[in-house]
This record gives sequence, structure tokens and C-alpha cells, in this order.
Amino acid sequence: MNKIKFTFVGGDLRLGAAHEYIKSLGYMSDTFLSEKAESVSKKDKCVIFPLSDVYVLPLPVTNDKININAPLSDLSLSFKDFFTMLPDNVIVFGGMIPDEIKALAKEYSVTMLDYYSSEELQIKNSVPTAEGAIEIALREMPVTLYKTKSLIIGSGRITKATAPLLSAFKSLVTIASRNPDSLLWNEIFGFNTINTSNISESVGDYDLIINTAPEKILTGNILSRLKKDCLVIDLASRPGGVDMDSASRLGVRVIWALGLPGKCAPVSAGHIIGSTVLNMLNSI
Amino acid sequence: MNKIKFTFVGGDLRLGAAHEYIKSLGYMSDTFLSEKAESVSKKDKCVIFPLSDVYVLPLPVTNDKININAPLSDLSLSFKDFFTMLPDNVIVFGGMIPDEIKALAKEYSVTMLDYYSSEELQIKNSVPTAEGAIEIALREMPVTLYKTKSLIIGSGRITKATAPLLSAFKSLVTIASRNPDSLLWNEIFGFNTINTSNISESVGDYDLIINTAPEKILTGNILSRLKKDCLVIDLASRPGGVDMDSASRLGVRVIWALGLPGKCAPVSAGHIIGSTVLNMLNSI
Amino acid sequence: MNKIKFTFVGGDLRLGAAHEYIKSLGYMSDTFLSEKAESVSKKDKCVIFPLSDVYVLPLPVTNDKININAPLSDLSLSFKDFFTMLPDNVIVFGGMIPDEIKALAKEYSVTMLDYYSSEELQIKNSVPTAEGAIEIALREMPVTLYKTKSLIIGSGRITKATAPLLSAFKSLVTIASRNPDSLLWNEIFGFNTINTSNISESVGDYDLIINTAPEKILTGNILSRLKKDCLVIDLASRPGGVDMDSASRLGVRVIWALGLPGKCAPVSAGHIIGSTVLNMLNSI
Amino acid sequence: MNKIKFTFVGGDLRLGAAHEYIKSLGYMSDTFLSEKAESVSKKDKCVIFPLSDVYVLPLPVTNDKININAPLSDLSLSFKDFFTMLPDNVIVFGGMIPDEIKALAKEYSVTMLDYYSSEELQIKNSVPTAEGAIEIALREMPVTLYKTKSLIIGSGRITKATAPLLSAFKSLVTIASRNPDSLLWNEIFGFNTINTSNISESVGDYDLIINTAPEKILTGNILSRLKKDCLVIDLASRPGGVDMDSASRLGVRVIWALGLPGKCAPVSAGHIIGSTVLNMLNSI
Repeated sequence: MNKIKFTFVGGDLRLGAAHEYIKSLGYMSDTFLSEKAESVSKKDKCVIFPLSDVYVLPLPVTNDKININAPLSDLSLSFKDFFTMLPDNVIVFGGMIPDEIKALAKEYSVTMLDYYSSEELQIKNSVPTAEGAIEIALREMPVTLYKTKSLIIGSGRITKATAPLLSAFKSLVTIASRNPDSLLWNEIFGFNTINTSNISESVGDYDLIINTAPEKILTGNILSRLKKDCLVIDLASRPGGVDMDSASRLGVRVIWALGLPGKCAPVSAGHIIGSTVLNMLNSI
Repeated sequence: MNKIKFTFVGGDLRLGAAHEYIKSLGYMSDTFLSEKAESVSKKDKCVIFPLSDVYVLPLPVTNDKININAPLSDLSLSFKDFFTMLPDNVIVFGGMIPDEIKALAKEYSVTMLDYYSSEELQIKNSVPTAEGAIEIALREMPVTLYKTKSLIIGSGRITKATAPLLSAFKSLVTIASRNPDSLLWNEIFGFNTINTSNISESVGDYDLIINTAPEKILTGNILSRLKKDCLVIDLASRPGGVDMDSASRLGVRVIWALGLPGKCAPVSAGHIIGSTVLNMLNSI
Repeated sequence: MNKIKFTFVGGDLRLGAAHEYIKSLGYMSDTFLSEKAESVSKKDKCVIFPLSDVYVLPLPVTNDKININAPLSDLSLSFKDFFTMLPDNVIVFGGMIPDEIKALAKEYSVTMLDYYSSEELQIKNSVPTAEGAIEIALREMPVTLYKTKSLIIGSGRITKATAPLLSAFKSLVTIASRNPDSLLWNEIFGFNTINTSNISESVGDYDLIINTAPEKILTGNILSRLKKDCLVIDLASRPGGVDMDSASRLGVRVIWALGLPGKCAPVSAGHIIGSTVLNMLNSI
Repeated sequence: MNKIKFTFVGGDLRLGAAHEYIKSLGYMSDTFLSEKAESVSKKDKCVIFPLSDVYVLPLPVTNDKININAPLSDLSLSFKDFFTMLPDNVIVFGGMIPDEIKALAKEYSVTMLDYYSSEELQIKNSVPTAEGAIEIALREMPVTLYKTKSLIIGSGRITKATAPLLSAFKSLVTIASRNPDSLLWNEIFGFNTINTSNISESVGDYDLIINTAPEKILTGNILSRLKKDCLVIDLASRPGGVDMDSASRLGVRVIWALGLPGKCAPVSAGHIIGSTVLNMLNSI
């Protein structure tokens, strides 16, 4: 299997780190369309489109549904041209592949897999996301996390990674969920728990609220009850969990933090992409 | 005792927060010489030097050994003028009072106490210092703290507050100390330990080194053995624990972080000053 | 709802504790067929079969599939007689109800629910089970848990409750599972992990092995590789996870511990039964 | 240094384990006066008094101030005879050596050192003591430690080792101390704290009280305020911290647990004796 060759196309620091990770495991690997990536050695940067067995595209794979996302290149490459140039029998990986691109791959008979939809990547990404959320809280709050009261909304992967960290800072953590089993477990793990439906009762107690639920829970009504100076960190993907108009009107400080792994720990995020791709290959 | 009146003179956000804290406990309190402090309400800002029982000066109390440290004022007040204006039988608190100012206070028969030298403040400040160190590590490292190897040099107050936090992030923490009892305890608490004398053997293993010891331990020789990309955070007060010339020559990234409580959690730092002053008053 | 009346029939310390718990919440409650229960006050012990809305039977509800399990009584009551005496429209709860008894209840048109099959009870019982396992390990091992190496087989409820406890004693915990997502999460939580299929490689490293998986994993072959003096605690229900013949032949010390909640923390186990019954009633 | 020869004289399981530990490090070692020690191989049991460089006596070294404490022997050996038989220039270690024996050693010009008075042994013993205390609590309480309220009196070594364990079981831990710095630290570590002088106010809140202070704090007055069913574990050495007459009169359940390392983890306790003796030798 170590005879497989990889090419990383486009992307940011993460894809460079993924390339380095794959190389460190003994695979052949090079990069294309990221000539300004400082962390990648010059000899690994291809000028001419390289032949490979596996092509790994960035996360997200595209911003405009036409070209490959390549912020570290002055050039651009459309998926059409990319698919045309590919040798036979290759596997192409990408993150958050839009339906249009999936359809195009099918048209060109290219096998294209989305590593972002893998549970492995989602679980592993919860760690840099949690660390990024803590970094934001430490940076933005004029008080120590020690002895604050904090609320985490949702009881999914990010909460599982974030709650123990907040608790280690001796923040008194409450977890809001609608899942009764999650509530029981979080109580056993030592957190306070509350049913999300009852959130309005106690929402004024917290110094920090971290939302992880992809649901508009922090409505104007809820936001109007927040403690003065409460910081809200929204980790939910679009459209987010906070009514931003109300927040702005009420003067609630909200930090909507998306893509924390890539922003706060790009090298780790790259390793996660690399190891996920490898495990996906192994289980084909 | 609630009849005691406090005046906070000069200082930054911290002294404003200390003032608010004292007021929240039911004491009379106002401020002088910090007219630009946004967190203090206008009616608490005195224009004319206010009579009080207790005057609390900032940390550090002065930068030039002549005037009171007052970064949030366009005016300046010398200690001579301050001592001259004071009513009889007051108590003056300050932080890091130089010998010259202590002598001057004596000359004017003013009782002047240093809250910075109190063990209470030093212990309490270890929390915002630890949180600040974690914030720096999270911000500066392109990898997650998760699964890093970290070394904390010294086994004093800051280490006691910092090591459990790093460990909660699942960093593999080693503590270097010369104190055999500290080494035993830190082993019991689940940390790896090493005698500081043997630090050179393993110093190349770490992704993060936090120095808390007021001793030049990170010499050029030691620094030359560090792992590429190792981040060094120096929390030791002047002259610091890192040979900065060697670090610069070797390309080692060092962040010398002083006064973290005031920078990272000014409101908590102010509360700590306020509560320390109160406890010092109670034990007079 | 507080007008509902409960009767607890038969059972051991747990059912007495469940009765006290229900009473403490303001419900009417009495007991029948446990006249020797010391923890129950005399006035709550009925001589004549009491009329109620809800009858709570023990865990297990029967040992012989004929009579109600009543170790604290010198009398005996068959399910037939019990069902005959019941008023109309009552609800009967029991734990581990055999199919024969379920069928009999149906015959008598009695609504009979099994609290043991509720996820709530199973989750909550993981706490006394974990504490019981730690108690056994502390009692049976001539060494401290501190600095031991321990293996927990399985990654279900009991493991979730037990692993953090062992880890708090600074035992180096490894979790064996076949579920890749569980392995990822347990790694994030700071445990070592191993795929159960590869258990034979490292099984000789451990001082303590706790099995929670209802599967014959600890075969003669595996047991023959154990470290001398390794203690095995088997928490798996019948038929258990250990080849007991091989263990006996090889001189491996195995403690097969079933029903730990009732044995190690009967009062808590009773509260868990009481609260589960209440929540099941509320969701009817 | 590996040429040093050790003889372990008398004692229980611990001294046998200490002998095995010393042997495992490559030293020559044998035993005398513990012929019934099952854990020691027959060939290491001397029939005739063996010549050695270092003699290690048990903890406590004697019960009657005349003979060496030797519960695993049918024979007895007085210190007088022992000192008479010793070669020149040996070092004798013992635990809790009474003044009379120290004086006798001096008379015979024998160098005799007490390992029990070493800070190393005291620190290390806090781990098996803490584990033993948890074992007692788990065994004696009919409820889970989870969600109990517990009080630890004193803030010394045993508390440092015990409090984190109790906390891991999600017991809500309060630490009582008279030392203001200890109170501050324990607050930072996440425990509730109370000044021992104010203990009577809240002492009725706890399900478990562990006393570590060598002071009669749990007087009749205090005991009369305890919650029904509160378990008291007294770890303080003679005369203990509990007024036992009052406890008995009031029906308070007190377990006075002395010598827990030897009782609950004799092998670890033996290793601790062995390693302490070695470190004391190294620092002579």
C-alpha cells in the first residue's frame, strides 16, 4: 500500500500539513496549485500537473462551484480541466463537495469521496474546535474562566470535547439538551444539566454561553434575558443559532466562530484530513 | 467596618474593577486620577482630591519613582503632593512599592502597605497567570494542545495552577523542579517529573515549554537542543529565564509574558487586589 | 399527580429505599411482603394487601417464575394470587420480568412494565456498578491502583462510568472496543485504546482487567498470557466473559461480580428504581 | 553501590515486598525472622543470622520495646541480641523507633535510622492511605459516593491525596483547615473550603467526614449535629480526632483506620519502604 502516490491540490496550510503527514508515513506525495505554501518544501511543489493514485482536494473543495479552492496560488484550475487531466482509476478526495461537483465527477467517471462527511473527521475535529472556543473565551473575557458560570447548548461532539475543558478551568458548566439520555450522562460526568426547552429560566445566570446546536435557540426573547457582559460564542454552522439582529440591537456580544480547526490549529487540522483520507482508503 | 471609605488613585482597568468590587460589598468608594476609565461611572470620578480612610494605589504603584502610575489620566500627581494632601490616620495601599517611596511615606508619617507582597494576592494571581499562559499557547501554536508534550520549569504557585489546565487538554505534562518533595507530589498528581539539573537530556522532546523559575535555566546550550517549532513561554519576572540572545540567534520562538493577570483578566485582577486589600485591613 | 398511591411488594433493601424515596417526594406509599425490612418504619408495613394505584415489584421480580421475590418476608405470594387481588386499572412495575409472568399479567389484563429495560435505569445503574468495581479492585489488590495498568473491555455504559474513576486513581487505563467511534472518543478523553481483536498482543501488560462485554473474550488462550497476579473482574451478565474453567486451571484470580448496585449501594439502587418508575409513569 | 547487601528482619507482608523490590533492582538481599512469609521464596529465608551491610527492620520496629516486631515468625529476637550479633559498620533502618531502642543502638555504637520519619515515606504513604479511605467509604456506605457531600478535616498530605479521589467520584468535597494559604489553594483546585473554627455551622450537611487532623475536633457537641447516617472515618493517629465516648453514646458510626498502607496495599507499602531506605542510603 505504501506504493500509493498522493497529490494535494490547492487548499491552505491544512492541505500542506496533510501532505507532510502522509509523507512522514512513507508515502510518495507532492502538491499542486499551492505554490505559496511556506510549510511545503520547494521540491514537493509540482509545476506540471502530477500523475498520482490519489488526489486530495481542500476543505471546502470550492468556493464558487467552478474552480478548486486554492488561496495559496495565483493560478486557478476548474474542476472540468482537473477531471479532464486525471489518469484512469484514481480516487479524488475533497471536503464539503457540492452536489454540482459530485455530478460533474460522475459525468467524467471519476470516483470522488467527501472526507468531511466521515464520522472520523467530525469526531477528531471536535478537539481543535473545542480548543478554539476556549481560546476565544480566554481572549474575549476580561475575567478568568475560573468561577464563571457557563452554558453549553447542545450535547453533540463539540460539547463532549468542550465541556471537560471548561470544567478544568473550574467554570461551573451547565449543558442544555433535549436528549434525555445525554442529560443523564452529562449529569453523571459532573455537569449541571437543563432541558433546552427550559433554557429561558436560567439563561440570565451565565457569564459565557457556547452554542453548538444548529437551531435558532438564542432568539431575541432569550437574548434579552442575558446577564450584562455575557459572552456568546456560536459554533453552529450556517445559519447559526443566534438571532444576530436582536443581539446587535440588545448589545449582546456574539462571536460566530466557524471553521475553528483550520483557523486555530491548521497543522492538526491537516493531520486529521490526512489520517481520515488514509482510513477511508483502507476501508474501500 | 462598612463605614470605612476607600479612594482608588490612578491605575488601569484593574483599579477600576477593584473600586467596583469594594462598592459592591457596600463600602463607600470613589476614584481619582483615572478620569478616562470607561468602566467607572462618572459620578465616582472625583475632580477634587477626596478625603478617605483608605487610599489604594495601582500595581505597580509608580513607573518613575516620582509620580503615581496613572495611565488613564492626562494629569500627574507626585507622591510628595499626594502625601502632603492626605488626612491624618489613613492607610495607603500600593503594589510593588519601591524603597524610595516607602522611605518618603515614612518621612510623611504615612502608613503604606504593599498588597503585592501578600501571599494571598500571589496565590490568587496564579489563576489569571495560568489562564493567560494557556491563552498564549492556544493562540501561538499551529497544533492543538491535545497530544503535545509540554514542560513546565519550576514547581511554585504558577505551576500548581497551570499544570492541571495543560493536563486537561491532554497535553503530556512534565514538571522540572529541584525540590524533591515537589517532585514526589507532582508525580502523585499524575505529572511526569524531572530534576531541573537533568533537563538537557529530555528538553528536545517538548512542543511547549513554560518557564516559571526566576533563573537563567534556558541557556544557549539548552535552547540549541529544542525541537523545531517548540514554543517557549517565559513567565519569570526580570531578568527572565531565557537567554534571549541565544534564542534569537537559534530562531527559537520565545514569548516573554509579564503581568498576565492585568493583561488577560483585568477585572479578575482588580477583584483580587480589592479582596486582598480588605483582608489586609481586617488583619491589621 | 401526588394523589397516586404506591405499594412496594417484596424485594430487598432496594425496594425499601425506593419506598422511602417515593414518600420523600410527597406520595402516599406503603410496603407489603417485606416485614423484616429494617429500614422501613413499622407503620408503613401492611399486614393486609393494600389497595394502590401503582405496585412496584422487586429486581429481579421473581426467582422461580411462580412467586414474587421476597427475601425479607417469611411469607410467599404467587403472581396468580397477586394478580387476582389487584384492583382495576392499576399499573404494576417489576424488574427483569420473565416472559411467563408477562403472559400471565396479560391473561389477568394487568398492565405490567419492566423498569429494568429502561435506558434511564441502565444509565443510572452504571454509577453504582462502577463504584462497586472500584471497591472490589481496592479490596482485592495488594497494591495501590496508583500506577497500575488496567484494561477495560467494552465501551458501553459501565465503561463510561468506570474509566474516569480508574483514571483518577492514576491507573493507566486502556479501553478495548470493536467500535471505531468509541475508540476515537476514548482516545480524546485521554485513555489508551485498543481494538478488541488485537487484545492478545498486550493483555500481559495489565495488573487489572475489567470485562464489561457480554462475550467470551477472555478465553483460555488469552488468560494464559496474563501477568502473574493480574486481577480479573467480570461485570458481564450470564454467561460472563471469562472461560472460568481455564481461569481455574491457570490459577487466574477472577471475581465475577453481578448485581453490584444492589450489593454495594442498595439505597442508591433503590432511589434509581424509584425515580425510574416515576419517570416511566410520567411518560405513559 | 549494587554490592551492598541487605537483610530484612521480622515484619509482615510489607517487609517481604520491600525485600523483593530491593532484589528486583539488582541488590543482594535476604530475610530473617519471617519464616512464614508466603511471598518470600524459601531460599531467601535465612536460618542463621546473615551478615549484611544494611539491616531493615519493620514498621513499627517493635511492639514491646524489647523484641523486634516479627509477626510472621514463631521465634523472637531482642534488640540486645540483635545489636550484639551485628557486624561492624552496618546501617540499621527501622520504622517508628522508640527512644529506648535509639538509646540502646547508641550504646552498642550502631547507626540506626528511622525511615518512618522521612518526608519521602510520609508523602508516598499518602497514596495508599487515600485509597484505603476510599475503600472504607465504598464498603461502609449504602449509597454511592456520587452526589454525596463530604468533608475532609485538615489540609495536609493525606488530604492532598484523598480530596481529588473523592471529587472524581463526584462527591461534593469541602476541606476544613485553619491554614489560610491551604484554604486559598484548595479553592483554586475546585474544592469548597471552610475554616475549621466554623465547622459546627455546616457539619450537619455531610454524608461522609474524613478526619486527618491530629486534634480532637469532632467533640460531642459537633458529633451531635451530624446528619443521620453520616459516616466518620478517622485517619488521625493516636489519640485520634473523634470523641469516641460521645460517638458511641450518640450512635455515630466511626471507623478509626490506622496503618492503612500496610492493611490495604501491603505490597505497595513495602515498595515505599524499600525505595525510601535506598534514597536515605544515597543521601548519607
